[in-house]
Amino acid sequence: MKVFGHPMSTCTRKVLATLAEKGHEAELVMVDLMKGEHKQPAHLARHPFGVIPAIDDNGFVLYESRAIIRYLDQTLPGPALTPTDPKDRARMEQWMSVEQSYFQSGAMKIIMQRMFASMAGKQPDEAIVDQGKDEAGKVLDIAAEVLKKGYFAQTGFSLADICWMPYVQYLFTAGAGSLITERPAVASWWERVSSRPSWKKVAG
Amino acid sequence: MKVFGHPMSTCTRKVLATLAEKGHEAELVMVDLMKGEHKQPAHLARHPFGVIPAIDDNGFVLYESRAIIRYLDQTLPGPALTPTDPKDRARMEQWMSVEQSYFQSGAMKIIMQRMFASMAGKQPDEAIVDQGKDEAGKVLDIAAEVLKKGYFAQTGFSLADICWMPYVQYLFTAGAGSLITERPAVASWWERVSSRPSWKKVAG
Repeated sequence: MKVFGHPMSTCTRKVLATLAEKGHEAELVMVDLMKGEHKQPAHLARHPFGVIPAIDDNGFVLYESRAIIRYLDQTLPGPALTPTDPKDRARMEQWMSVEQSYFQSGAMKIIMQRMFASMAGKQPDEAIVDQGKDEAGKVLDIAAEVLKKGYFAQTGFSLADICWMPYVQYLFTAGAGSLITERPAVASWWERVSSRPSWKKVAG
Repeated sequence: MKVFGHPMSTCTRKVLATLAEKGHEAELVMVDLMKGEHKQPAHLARHPFGVIPAIDDNGFVLYESRAIIRYLDQTLPGPALTPTDPKDRARMEQWMSVEQSYFQSGAMKIIMQRMFASMAGKQPDEAIVDQGKDEAGKVLDIAAEVLKKGYFAQTGFSLADICWMPYVQYLFTAGAGSLITERPAVASWWERVSSRPSWKKVAG
């Protein structure tokens, strides 16, 4: 299996973390975003929206990270990352959707300004950072309630946790870790999930 | 089962269409958006993000439409709306994510201006409409390729089709139906899916 992506991309990391949890090795084929390779024909043939990641599983090409990780969980051997109980599975799906609809956009405002604008030699726009902190903070207040019970799907680690982890890690890198540490239930969840060997492999 | 939502809301319609496909009756409890009921404590207790829909299935409260419809499909009797083949299921998930990540935002720019701004007595901003047409058009060009094969999951009608349908219908209502009719594969898909009895029940 090939993963077309970038080791620093949040969505690529969701796929790499899922592979690591399943104990499966895949070849990471670098798509160089700085060179604009994601907008060139070779990549557009895999992912017509010109973003990353995509996978090629023996000729089956799939894109959208959240679709990819569900597929990997269903088809690869290894521990299940989707609860079998329908209500727990529904909770997992709810929190995956919350990440996609509400958390990602606020967190990425901070991450783009503080990490990626700096890497491109630009000054971060702190007004956008503040807006991102406000948005992400409100989502994290709500997430904190469920994380008191352990994980997003409550009964155990699942794909929902994997979806949130890349953003949470980069909030720390972007100097906004207080969004996490100020919320004890979120901080305790982060300590638990980020100490997993799979995550150390991906983020290390 | 109770559905808390509004019969005109795109995301409520995803839930109602899924229920109709499964042949299940649920009570639609109106959340009056004009009165701001979605931001009041009774609804925030169900959906802390203050949007619609949410369901209450015998005490189990769930929000996020795409999580709800997966839950309904898994737990209710009636025809399966998720393919059993892992690759077809992955295609379904990919196109559900494309709707959430790329299609919805462009389509809603048009719908908000042409339908809901007018309903609130405001003049539609045609510059926003044009931007939405451009965005939605690019997504529909890509969707047209897969829809030549019949449905988003290729082998048959699934939750992915349900996710796209409310937006497509409102594009017609908003006077932007040419986005659909100019793309024969999308137009033919729309004719097929919108003639289903379930959709006539929801949209009628």
